[in-house]
Amino acid sequence: MNVTVLVGGVGGARFLSGLRRLLDISPGVEPNPDAAHRITAIVNVGDDVWMHGLRICPDLDTCMYTLGGGIDTERGWGRAGETWNAKEELAAYGAIPDWFGLGDRDIATHLIRTQMLRTGYPLSAITEALCTRWKPGVTLLPVSDDRSETHVVITDPEDGEQRAVHFEEWWVRHRAQVPTHSFAHIGAEEAKPAPGVLEAIENADAVVLAPSNPVVSVGAILAIPGIRGALRTTSAKVVGLSPVIDGKPLRGMADACLDVIGVETTAEAVGRYYGARSGTGILDGWLVHSTDSAEVPGVEVRSVPLLMTDTDATAEMARAALDLAGVTL
Amino acid sequence: MNVTVLVGGVGGARFLSGLRRLLDISPGVEPNPDAAHRITAIVNVGDDVWMHGLRICPDLDTCMYTLGGGIDTERGWGRAGETWNAKEELAAYGAIPDWFGLGDRDIATHLIRTQMLRTGYPLSAITEALCTRWKPGVTLLPVSDDRSETHVVITDPEDGEQRAVHFEEWWVRHRAQVPTHSFAHIGAEEAKPAPGVLEAIENADAVVLAPSNPVVSVGAILAIPGIRGALRTTSAKVVGLSPVIDGKPLRGMADACLDVIGVETTAEAVGRYYGARSGTGILDGWLVHSTDSAEVPGVEVRSVPLLMTDTDATAEMARAALDLAGVTL
Repeated sequence: MNVTVLVGGVGGARFLSGLRRLLDISPGVEPNPDAAHRITAIVNVGDDVWMHGLRICPDLDTCMYTLGGGIDTERGWGRAGETWNAKEELAAYGAIPDWFGLGDRDIATHLIRTQMLRTGYPLSAITEALCTRWKPGVTLLPVSDDRSETHVVITDPEDGEQRAVHFEEWWVRHRAQVPTHSFAHIGAEEAKPAPGVLEAIENADAVVLAPSNPVVSVGAILAIPGIRGALRTTSAKVVGLSPVIDGKPLRGMADACLDVIGVETTAEAVGRYYGARSGTGILDGWLVHSTDSAEVPGVEVRSVPLLMTDTDATAEMARAALDLAGVTL
Repeated sequence: MNVTVLVGGVGGARFLSGLRRLLDISPGVEPNPDAAHRITAIVNVGDDVWMHGLRICPDLDTCMYTLGGGIDTERGWGRAGETWNAKEELAAYGAIPDWFGLGDRDIATHLIRTQMLRTGYPLSAITEALCTRWKPGVTLLPVSDDRSETHVVITDPEDGEQRAVHFEEWWVRHRAQVPTHSFAHIGAEEAKPAPGVLEAIENADAVVLAPSNPVVSVGAILAIPGIRGALRTTSAKVVGLSPVIDGKPLRGMADACLDVIGVETTAEAVGRYYGARSGTGILDGWLVHSTDSAEVPGVEVRSVPLLMTDTDATAEMARAALDLAGVTL
């Protein structure tokens, strides 16, 4: 069975861990082309950013570290056993930005990626190369090899002027606590899906939207031309998991993002925002938490536990998603 | 008084500390244009190297960290309180080279330098920018903004083939313990002295060759066109300090370097290698250690203690050098 999942960072990575367990795929070994089940993750690149001359891909790295056993499980991002000495020194030089969590171990990943980019390798090939170390058991595909970055139009609290800042500046520096007007996916219009991305959607037995941020994770993936079309035409069913439970985002600040685009922070509103494939949307099925209910025209909705408390609980969420997609293990 | 010193890394940096104390220059404060005394260091760039996409300038950094109070005094190079997590991770990825001591704190310096280089700043301007943090009390000038790297022709122990490797590979990876045939200063012929370098020699009251490696530190500086000429024509006297004491190099592996160019590891042979300004060389005076003696035609030789056991002892060496250069404090 081929399962293709659209993911952002922390939430998406955890969901992939559960799906991997459900499909009995072992991490830490070379990919097995004859395996019964294969997972392909199409990963958001909208958070990707140049900092201090390094190309940083937060969502790809969170997926890679989580699935490869290198993640700081407490924080949910970055490396276990991390130190922050380079960051401290950069700040001592007065280098900006000084608000980004650039860990010493993490820097090694960025150095290799940056060097390979400068040598001409596309991000997809670089990700594959980095994964030869991490052996995530999941094929991680950046949604695009082209630069497509999420920027945010804010009113700058320092001078009251409107300006566009990189998503990471909005998210990490301002913690989304500034007057925010809109998102722009810079470069998205000219970006092409990375090799294998459209095929992974077209040839899937099931396509899943992870319970990632619907605006800046899944939304940024959908901004790449061709993705939405592939989701609408694949013969597989497309099932999403709500990242909103009981009117609150599971993690992160999805509510702040939804506010900006005028979508209520409810499981139903997010389901309607994605919409039904039978209409102009992308969903066949929509999973909401057991205490939630939702009506999304044209979409089959089921209520199941959606708290990713541990990998087993997450595996059960993945099972419910595949059930709803009409595939059986 | 303007004193200009040609320096390499560890030995040069320590000598500068002693000279700075002798001239009563305070580190850690903004440069004072009205100060009674000024020190300009012309620093070797032959060891500079690209590694993992970072531009690393070992001698400039050793001088900057030593004079700025950031050096690991035990090791003599790199940062105090250093950690090596990025290096460990790079090795875990299988990235090469894996033999270079790339510290996490140190990386911040390289990131800033690399970014500024890519933005178009010359190394001299970058060094000045980095020194606004370290306030070394000494003007550090790279001898050239152009790439002039010392490479070493060796017989590769792995396959018996002759090949040229970067100096750092010879020095750090092979510890100079491979059959070595010659040095090449790649790019030196086309390199120009950095802004201020020739002026610092021309306008000096005394020029000093630090007790640095005569081949790969001072020799690499002399390989830049214009430097030797400026040393021969300056109205200041040029005085050198022997890095060889009792037939052994004070530190490093200067003997291995001298072997390659067919110069004996004695204070006299090194003095003769530099040669007299009255002939075709660059020296007016040559300081050898108190237990050594040397005869260098056309050069005034004095024996004084040359062990840089502490900053005060080093200051006395600097005093002897200035005495020999005919200037009085």
